[in-house]
Amino acid sequence: MAAAAAAAPPSSSSLAPPEVPMELHAGNRDRLVAALRAHLSASGRPLRGLVLLQGGEEQTRYCTDHLELFRQESYFAYLFGVREPGFYGAIDIVSGQSILFSPRLPADYAVWMGEIKPLSYFKDRYKVDMVFYVDEITQVLQDRFSDHGKPLLFVLYGKNTDSGNYSKPASFEGMEKFDSDLSTLHPILTECRVIKSDMELALIQYANDVSSEAHIEVMRRAKPGMKEYQLESIFLHHVYMYGGCRHCSYTCICATGENSSVLHYGHAAAPNDRTLNDGDMALMDMGGEYHCYGSDITCSYPINGKFNSNQTIVYNAVLKAHNAVIAHMRPGVNWLDMHKLAEQTILESLKNERILHGDVTDMMAQRLGAVFMPHGLGHLLGIDTHDPGGYPEGLERPKEPGLSSLRTIRELKEGMVITVEPGCYFIDALLIPARDDPVSSKFFNWEEIEKYKSFGGVRIESDVYVTAHGCKNLTNCPRETWEIEAVMAGSVEDGPLEYRPLKTERTNVVSLKCLASFYI
Amino acid sequence: MAAAAAAAPPSSSSLAPPEVPMELHAGNRDRLVAALRAHLSASGRPLRGLVLLQGGEEQTRYCTDHLELFRQESYFAYLFGVREPGFYGAIDIVSGQSILFSPRLPADYAVWMGEIKPLSYFKDRYKVDMVFYVDEITQVLQDRFSDHGKPLLFVLYGKNTDSGNYSKPASFEGMEKFDSDLSTLHPILTECRVIKSDMELALIQYANDVSSEAHIEVMRRAKPGMKEYQLESIFLHHVYMYGGCRHCSYTCICATGENSSVLHYGHAAAPNDRTLNDGDMALMDMGGEYHCYGSDITCSYPINGKFNSNQTIVYNAVLKAHNAVIAHMRPGVNWLDMHKLAEQTILESLKNERILHGDVTDMMAQRLGAVFMPHGLGHLLGIDTHDPGGYPEGLERPKEPGLSSLRTIRELKEGMVITVEPGCYFIDALLIPARDDPVSSKFFNWEEIEKYKSFGGVRIESDVYVTAHGCKNLTNCPRETWEIEAVMAGSVEDGPLEYRPLKTERTNVVSLKCLASFYI
Repeated sequence: MAAAAAAAPPSSSSLAPPEVPMELHAGNRDRLVAALRAHLSASGRPLRGLVLLQGGEEQTRYCTDHLELFRQESYFAYLFGVREPGFYGAIDIVSGQSILFSPRLPADYAVWMGEIKPLSYFKDRYKVDMVFYVDEITQVLQDRFSDHGKPLLFVLYGKNTDSGNYSKPASFEGMEKFDSDLSTLHPILTECRVIKSDMELALIQYANDVSSEAHIEVMRRAKPGMKEYQLESIFLHHVYMYGGCRHCSYTCICATGENSSVLHYGHAAAPNDRTLNDGDMALMDMGGEYHCYGSDITCSYPINGKFNSNQTIVYNAVLKAHNAVIAHMRPGVNWLDMHKLAEQTILESLKNERILHGDVTDMMAQRLGAVFMPHGLGHLLGIDTHDPGGYPEGLERPKEPGLSSLRTIRELKEGMVITVEPGCYFIDALLIPARDDPVSSKFFNWEEIEKYKSFGGVRIESDVYVTAHGCKNLTNCPRETWEIEAVMAGSVEDGPLEYRPLKTERTNVVSLKCLASFYI
Repeated sequence: MAAAAAAAPPSSSSLAPPEVPMELHAGNRDRLVAALRAHLSASGRPLRGLVLLQGGEEQTRYCTDHLELFRQESYFAYLFGVREPGFYGAIDIVSGQSILFSPRLPADYAVWMGEIKPLSYFKDRYKVDMVFYVDEITQVLQDRFSDHGKPLLFVLYGKNTDSGNYSKPASFEGMEKFDSDLSTLHPILTECRVIKSDMELALIQYANDVSSEAHIEVMRRAKPGMKEYQLESIFLHHVYMYGGCRHCSYTCICATGENSSVLHYGHAAAPNDRTLNDGDMALMDMGGEYHCYGSDITCSYPINGKFNSNQTIVYNAVLKAHNAVIAHMRPGVNWLDMHKLAEQTILESLKNERILHGDVTDMMAQRLGAVFMPHGLGHLLGIDTHDPGGYPEGLERPKEPGLSSLRTIRELKEGMVITVEPGCYFIDALLIPARDDPVSSKFFNWEEIEKYKSFGGVRIESDVYVTAHGCKNLTNCPRETWEIEAVMAGSVEDGPLEYRPLKTERTNVVSLKCLASFYI
């Protein structure tokens, strides 16, 4: 990277894309096998069978031969780390042996797509025990794993609680010759993904490092007159050029002015195409992905580099909520309580600024938090931006406004990575009904609210790892208003960005008594 | 754009993303209606019915809620230019009236995705005659277009000759209440797309302008020690930051060293991850897309900025072929002949350099051109990179090596845009069989060939518009070796790139007699 950095002034990076140890995926497989064995044993079932997953396939655009850039299916990526399309993978839960099945490529692949790699290449690269061709699956599994009669295949079938979609179970020619178990694997494998290993954490940390740096680069270069998509372009370029992140975790949300109250702005129908104005707030929600492990970071700041008084009020309300949550996070804490803590903190700040009046507990009971923060406080993060496992069987999604948007209401556990992303927005579609409702309406100082009519919103989002006794913020962006103003005023000069050492781990010993009022 | 450019040293651009006139799509619809009427009239069918197309839908990644960035289906983009997903569009072939059907969005779309636009917004934006909701299709079409009995719908169903896939015909609830014609529309609409209007041409020209500029930027910054994907990142950033191109026409091929002989390098299994070495050739095949209209450009050059003798030999052989084809292109010229002209030109150069020996006509008969250029000379370009219409009904794909890869063998017509992309590669998978074949083998000087073992290949690709009496090269990249060396040595300074005026249109009056020998 040194040569590249030297060749590419003025921006660069102190980071370099790390090698990814394939032991990471071996470790993921080991944890799955252990969990499956424990489950079978606990439910008195025989210890036999193979996990069988089908990797992602390349997709063409509509009827054309335009190939979309392939990105591996996330469960498959978790267990095998394979970057090529068309693979299958199996794990014998008796021996723990892992097997990859590679597609058999036609001879002219060598001319058009590149060298046809021998099976030994994949065995070495992905550190699995055996590699065969996809068209050999039936024979290999029958020949090698029929000791206990017809081999049993644990295939992946279950609901993603964010999308409501079901995973597509593996299928192959000859599958009818096996017994298939469709229900056991999904919840167990999903739960494995919830708790991150140290090697997984290192990748999420790297994605955070390079994305934090890219956010700072965008902050430095944002100026009135630019287009929102130019900020997106700067971010994408930084994470790819210096971080090796070819994919981002999600479509960049580069929202300025009123757009910053559109939670998922930036898609094709609202494509980051507004011109930045002096006086606008910017809400930049962007995260790079490395070897399929993601980051999800939001920075909010004034486009002209200087917070005015209204911007300071809203920004600090959100920052206080962000910091309060992180100060409370540790194993055993319930995420629903953290969401309510964030809401309460924001409502208190708005009350202090006379934007609201009345009793905050009453506001909470009236669910006013959801008027200003209609989304959930955060979500699990990993190979998917909305990593699965937020609602394991038996955990019901709340129905109340705001709370119903929560992607999880779990108790925190050591090893989880979760986003902390409180926000405060001024959204007509929510304020108007609140005004029309006599019970809600009386809490608002509508004259004050009017001043925020075109304000948009503020979101501050960090990715936080739950440790044994507290948590660690993996994101490293300037958060205090004075820090942001200093960066935007040029305190970070051209040339390698000053990379600030990570905040040290925090052990949270804050009493949870203050949350008692939320147990409604 | 001025402010943005000022804010973003050192690279910038003299270009700015143009407004796209929606008359472009009205013109496309008019041409379709005229062609359909002419067809119905010629085949003695009654003049009645509506064209009905279904636009593209947003896709999620596997079972997750990760939304892929939406890109409109190309036929729908051609007729309506709609950037949002979930639309339908109809055109009455009697009156020429156009109707869009917008999806009815749920109330919380306003909070998450942005303002719910009224139907009048879409009517104004897309300049159509009427807009209704998708759930009103049946009623609207029945109420307004039942004069001649059960309305007849011309829906799109036909084969893409590049992918072999079939377009998905529109479907909606209540469709059984209409007569459907599945066969008429596809060939006629495809043929409309083959001939570009002036407004379409202007967008393809713009995509070429900004992509040519981005190629020059990559050329300036390429240095040994960098990674291939860093060149991709520079390109993507330039076309987006300065050109407003959020999509590219295809995945960037950033191939260096041996990789440059892999025709479609750069995909997920060969992800532009090699380190650039002093002495390598680079083959950069990249093109931005603007309002769905694309470009497809390849530049080849030495990474260290100075062509050595072998590099000069291969490069100039390809450049001579590229220039020879452009010199011959005009309406009436057959593309198969142009392909053979490129092959012949390359073989002659290789013979002059004693890499081959013997009679070039014999080499052509033996199909040796395909050993060095296994792909077709070029393809139609427009809303798709491989624009449809290469093989209209009745035109058969050739079977001979090399020729079988041609995406079209049509006669050129005024208004076509076609890529001219000869290449010369040293590919073991093709050279070894040629060596093993006693008839082919004798043409090669294997001692010389050995010197190009790790060379990779060269491709030079321009997008060319066929005019009434010749053609116009829309691409504007440095092509002569001395031009490339000057750019790489820094003749283009930091600051706005010098944008060279477009080459003027060329009227080709070259006799086609020289091609007589190819009619084998």
